[in-house]
Amino acid sequence: MELHTCLWNDVQAFSFSDEDLTPIVTRFPALKVVRHTTHQQFLDQAHRADLVLTWDFESAWYAGCPKLKAVLTPAAGNDWAQADPDNRVDLIHGSFHGEILAESLLGAMLFMNHKMPDMLLNQARTGWDRNLQTTTRLLANQQVLIIGFGHIAQACARLIESTGAHVTGVRRNLEGAQASASRLEHIDKLPELLPQSDHVVLLLPETKETDRFMDSERLRMMKQGSYLYNFGRGNSLLPSDLLAHMDHLGGAFLDVTEVEPLPPDSPLWHHPKITITPHSSCIYREYKELFITEVIARIAHYID
Amino acid sequence: MELHTCLWNDVQAFSFSDEDLTPIVTRFPALKVVRHTTHQQFLDQAHRADLVLTWDFESAWYAGCPKLKAVLTPAAGNDWAQADPDNRVDLIHGSFHGEILAESLLGAMLFMNHKMPDMLLNQARTGWDRNLQTTTRLLANQQVLIIGFGHIAQACARLIESTGAHVTGVRRNLEGAQASASRLEHIDKLPELLPQSDHVVLLLPETKETDRFMDSERLRMMKQGSYLYNFGRGNSLLPSDLLAHMDHLGGAFLDVTEVEPLPPDSPLWHHPKITITPHSSCIYREYKELFITEVIARIAHYID
Repeated sequence: MELHTCLWNDVQAFSFSDEDLTPIVTRFPALKVVRHTTHQQFLDQAHRADLVLTWDFESAWYAGCPKLKAVLTPAAGNDWAQADPDNRVDLIHGSFHGEILAESLLGAMLFMNHKMPDMLLNQARTGWDRNLQTTTRLLANQQVLIIGFGHIAQACARLIESTGAHVTGVRRNLEGAQASASRLEHIDKLPELLPQSDHVVLLLPETKETDRFMDSERLRMMKQGSYLYNFGRGNSLLPSDLLAHMDHLGGAFLDVTEVEPLPPDSPLWHHPKITITPHSSCIYREYKELFITEVIARIAHYID
Repeated sequence: MELHTCLWNDVQAFSFSDEDLTPIVTRFPALKVVRHTTHQQFLDQAHRADLVLTWDFESAWYAGCPKLKAVLTPAAGNDWAQADPDNRVDLIHGSFHGEILAESLLGAMLFMNHKMPDMLLNQARTGWDRNLQTTTRLLANQQVLIIGFGHIAQACARLIESTGAHVTGVRRNLEGAQASASRLEHIDKLPELLPQSDHVVLLLPETKETDRFMDSERLRMMKQGSYLYNFGRGNSLLPSDLLAHMDHLGGAFLDVTEVEPLPPDSPLWHHPKITITPHSSCIYREYKELFITEVIARIAHYID
């Protein structure tokens, strides 16, 4: 059997080397691993592939892969790898992102909650202003709302709850939700939940339904001084909507934006209450290792 | 009985109003609460005080307080309220700081670990550099060393461990230590522990023994790229020692400094790998409430 890989990426932490693939070779010695460095190279040999590990996969490519059983992609979202239109080949997304993203999100929440943007300005002006945090509250006593409550959000909720904070997750479909210590509500409850929440986290996937989900009306419902985080996809929050409501928010932390990279002339960059990271909430050295561990568990039944 | 208070402070979050004292009045209606706004005012009436809540108390003042049974201070350290030289009056320090400081410390650790200083520079130059975090590791997989392992450190350890990180506490006297999930070692083990730790946290009180505790020799033992935090007292780490070792450290986060306020001409302010907060790790809106709750529990047996 042959496993073909198309696992290069502009982000170094997401670009796999021969060494990163070693655990697969060790676990399945009979499996032939073919590592590609261009899509053309893969397409030329695609007819021999039984399994593919890839960042991208176009739906048209399935026709040229008669032996293919499964496409495995590290990506959590459906942005890059497309499903088989004939539904013959399995498309398996990585499901390890929650434990990684949770640390980035909790870090962002403690950063905003502890007024670190003000503290860093205080440092820049060599100040010793001990009254910047007069209104700071402990996360332990606050209400956190997570919009889009899939497996990534559930891992985030577990970590956030370990501080003592109260987490409520909302989703469109309550039936698919796993049991969790968190409170779970239907998305229809947002008009009641948004005004009570100290932190609102967007963890929505990119679909037509999530376009501009966090619109002007919902932003307006947010509590005075509360914080907004987007760690899902940029399509759910338009910069113009957010900027129009920054006065009553305590701040916003955006890891994703409507257009990426965020254009240099975007007014988001220099807003004093907005912190921006370059879609990097999952960029950790552990990323590749976690994916390979998951791959080994998932491909066993295709091979044995 | 009379309870006298000297609870003003330059830090608004630490300055108690009549309203902040209400729970005491409600719980002990027979207790007369006398709120002072200067030390002279207190000293003039000190002979009537049975209990004192105060930030400062000088050892000479005990002689003028014949009825005094206990001095309760919100401060965790012995910096402001001095003990009774005759050992007649109880001096009771606040013990609620751990749960507060833990959030500030965890926030600082996630801030440094996720390379937020670089990310904020990236934002300032409207950059979208997704390779800033190539070497970032999850806190969940790291070793945290806390030097000075009293009740504050133990509360911090509990929160940090909820991320999955491995915490080792060191202290001079192992006998006084409470049971804890954390690994506990004697301070003599530092030459072995420092080179293995990804994060080193100083939570030492200010005493003669802790002067320059984290000296050049110990700083040199720290692991390449590791982070140093001082959330205890400034006397344990001299700026000149720290600056001489910044090359091999990943960064330092200082909430306390040798001289406070840190002088405007200190080179610490502008070092790119050093983040400074103005001794504010416990400045939260909950501070006063937590102290009053503790006071109510502790004064009951003096009154009833």
